[in-house]
Amino acid sequence: MQKIERGEIKNPDENRKVTHFTDRSVYTGSEEFQQVESFAEAIRSGTLKSSTGKKFEAALINGIGGSALGPQLLQMAINGPYWNELSDVKRRGYLKIYFLDNTDTAGANDALQVCNLETTLVVNISKSGGTQETKNNMILCMHEYEKAGLDFSKHACAITMKNSELDKLARQNNWLQVFEMADSIGGRTSETSIVGHLPAALAGIDFKTFLQGACHMDKLTRNPQLVHNPSYMLAAMWYIAGNGKGDKNMVIVPYSDRLILMSRYLQQLVMESLGKELDLDGKTVHQGLNVFGNKGGTDAHAFIQQLNDGRNDFFITFIEILQDSKKVDISKGIGMGDYLHGFMTGLSNALRNKGRNVIEMRLDAVNEFNVGMLIALYERAVAAYAELIHINAFHQPGVQAYKLASKGVIQLLSNLEVQLANCIGFSGTVPEFAAKLNLTEQEYELDGILAKLAANADKRDLDFKVSRSWNADKGWVYTISK
Amino acid sequence: MQKIERGEIKNPDENRKVTHFTDRSVYTGSEEFQQVESFAEAIRSGTLKSSTGKKFEAALINGIGGSALGPQLLQMAINGPYWNELSDVKRRGYLKIYFLDNTDTAGANDALQVCNLETTLVVNISKSGGTQETKNNMILCMHEYEKAGLDFSKHACAITMKNSELDKLARQNNWLQVFEMADSIGGRTSETSIVGHLPAALAGIDFKTFLQGACHMDKLTRNPQLVHNPSYMLAAMWYIAGNGKGDKNMVIVPYSDRLILMSRYLQQLVMESLGKELDLDGKTVHQGLNVFGNKGGTDAHAFIQQLNDGRNDFFITFIEILQDSKKVDISKGIGMGDYLHGFMTGLSNALRNKGRNVIEMRLDAVNEFNVGMLIALYERAVAAYAELIHINAFHQPGVQAYKLASKGVIQLLSNLEVQLANCIGFSGTVPEFAAKLNLTEQEYELDGILAKLAANADKRDLDFKVSRSWNADKGWVYTISK
Repeated sequence: MQKIERGEIKNPDENRKVTHFTDRSVYTGSEEFQQVESFAEAIRSGTLKSSTGKKFEAALINGIGGSALGPQLLQMAINGPYWNELSDVKRRGYLKIYFLDNTDTAGANDALQVCNLETTLVVNISKSGGTQETKNNMILCMHEYEKAGLDFSKHACAITMKNSELDKLARQNNWLQVFEMADSIGGRTSETSIVGHLPAALAGIDFKTFLQGACHMDKLTRNPQLVHNPSYMLAAMWYIAGNGKGDKNMVIVPYSDRLILMSRYLQQLVMESLGKELDLDGKTVHQGLNVFGNKGGTDAHAFIQQLNDGRNDFFITFIEILQDSKKVDISKGIGMGDYLHGFMTGLSNALRNKGRNVIEMRLDAVNEFNVGMLIALYERAVAAYAELIHINAFHQPGVQAYKLASKGVIQLLSNLEVQLANCIGFSGTVPEFAAKLNLTEQEYELDGILAKLAANADKRDLDFKVSRSWNADKGWVYTISK
Repeated sequence: MQKIERGEIKNPDENRKVTHFTDRSVYTGSEEFQQVESFAEAIRSGTLKSSTGKKFEAALINGIGGSALGPQLLQMAINGPYWNELSDVKRRGYLKIYFLDNTDTAGANDALQVCNLETTLVVNISKSGGTQETKNNMILCMHEYEKAGLDFSKHACAITMKNSELDKLARQNNWLQVFEMADSIGGRTSETSIVGHLPAALAGIDFKTFLQGACHMDKLTRNPQLVHNPSYMLAAMWYIAGNGKGDKNMVIVPYSDRLILMSRYLQQLVMESLGKELDLDGKTVHQGLNVFGNKGGTDAHAFIQQLNDGRNDFFITFIEILQDSKKVDISKGIGMGDYLHGFMTGLSNALRNKGRNVIEMRLDAVNEFNVGMLIALYERAVAAYAELIHINAFHQPGVQAYKLASKGVIQLLSNLEVQLANCIGFSGTVPEFAAKLNLTEQEYELDGILAKLAANADKRDLDFKVSRSWNADKGWVYTISK
């Protein structure tokens, strides 16, 4: 950890420093921080207006993975699930927040149908500037703004690395603003950087206090003594529970509706950081640590039966929020929140009595400072655990194989749109098509593409149409017609 | 499966039939079905008005676990994430839907702050009628309606078993309506019963078509031939992947934003059904099958790195939605939805090349019929898998131990509120309090209760106050004062 903080190259494969632990301590004093705050305040106050001259009311946060999960966690934790349903007055002029975090037309459609483009800002976040899903949503937004007769460039801003594809595009088109992202901060650890800052600031979340929480935890976890260092303690418990090989799943159960996204956030942070084929010496190790969970006490009505009685293949982390948000008396002297406490304690007791591994944490409340502490704690525990198992926590080589394979499918689809134009009148099963098209090696991909083409025949500008019908003997039979 | 459907006792521990597979085939023809439809239509059309004479606009669905996860899944799948933000016209008069699914004051507060009680219906769902969390939320609602000067009974309805505590309360107070729930349908398999029906009907979801989908799958999965029975195939694959012991985690990745709750729904269905200590002969087996996941392609930016490179301790289920919801051209001939397909196929390829187990399913669209099929498919696969591993899938004995332990904590809190009144002026650490109060055996529970009391001193009607301060040597020191 000291080497990381001194700026040594701790991501050797990508020849990069790892600066998210240290950058955040100086970020609030930086020019970039002030830029974000000023931009958000100009939008909130209505000084910076949309292309129609109206005040901005909503933001579409366009990003995926590291550019979405952190902002989503913070938005849910601080503003709650119904922020967008509050009036502008209750939101104090801050924006409603919608996320585009996939390349699913249904999800994008849902968000676009409820946003009024005239008063919507699009925040495009991609470190590399080339993330395909984010690019797709950006292209969709460009189309939609054009269709609505609106100037997209006066509704768009970007967060990306200098000189990236997105950076160039945004500058060429005079977008409202381009915010620069550091190369040395990975997506999954970018929540305490500008990636977390802009969405938070637009939604009235106090990012400075959030960073103070993170930095406070950084300080606490610089203690070299194991038992006085919460991140080392956490990493040590993970190591002991899973024999240093991740033999037990990490079950994350915050007893808090507002923290339901914690497990999803940690899924990325932990699994992408620790799920590695090779260790630092190039030895095959197939490491990893599975993370899942939702929220307590609700989960007790879902999967606690298995934790209590079933496989002993997990360790559970309870995160308790001590302060009740409301005084709700249920019976004499006992409040609603006491039951939440009772359920957690009871479950912890039951599980420990069965020899299950339990970790408990308590926080006073869900607020910016404490969520900042939590994120920093887990980031540092992940880094410490990676040292224990001797892997690089800061790269993600496995994603490349998948990206390449995906590109191959898109290329094949492109080719097929040409080839199938020469098959009009042909009808057959997938293997028959594969034989005809000389694609027997790619029958699996062909199967999927034909299904996709048939299902979306009405949405394609092709000179032919693919249809399919079910045949009890042969399965799906595809037909190419004019 | 035939024995279950013939009505034999297949939940021997609770001496119960298991009727969710069969009841749904006759439900649409029943009087109960018509009651729900009529009630929902009266509310939608405004024939049945709230106590203020205004049309109902929102429903608080108060239920947990089996009474919440199914309705939440269906609501998200059919109406999408922004249903409540649509205008009444776009909702065609149907209600906005909010869930109270925990005993967290913060979550309840969030929902209550955004609901206008004057036009809100409270739907209380508890099979046993005594579920503590649901009872707590009901009590809270009663308080809130009273505080607002509204007649709760004219805003409340219930779904519960005949003669339950809730049933009696609702009838005594002349609630709008009480709907009866069958004893032979377990919470986690109640989505195709009245528990799923009422929340769906209030939100304009076509429950009849949903049931048709479920019944269609029931029919397909009555085929005794393994390879022609999708539920048997699924169960067999689970068995093979995990050596009949759940050695591999079930990762559920629908490539669909609308199906993001599928994994959470299945977490309950699968883990509560299959996570068992004893088999049907009373032999200790510690069975189970872990379920987690969120949605593709997004998850590829989260935990796919581990699946691809890390531990080979999972099998993945891809659920693809073939039809795009919108035509979005990204480049010549390639649409936004093609990328979603490409990412899924690419990932499947990459994982299979690494020897990972992959299951794929395709659906044309996310609609009532297809979600009905999915739920029935998994319900039947779970039942079949339970037979393969010789366990009772329909009870949940492990939940009892936990409930008892929780009650003990609440009892201790009650006692302490009396005992601590005699400790005014005393100051000490938790062990010191434990010694003084003769509770050394319960130091763990005492620790939690003192923390809870101190954090919520302002929300308690006690004759004393608990406060705490951090001491570097001793840890937390608690003080009881006037």
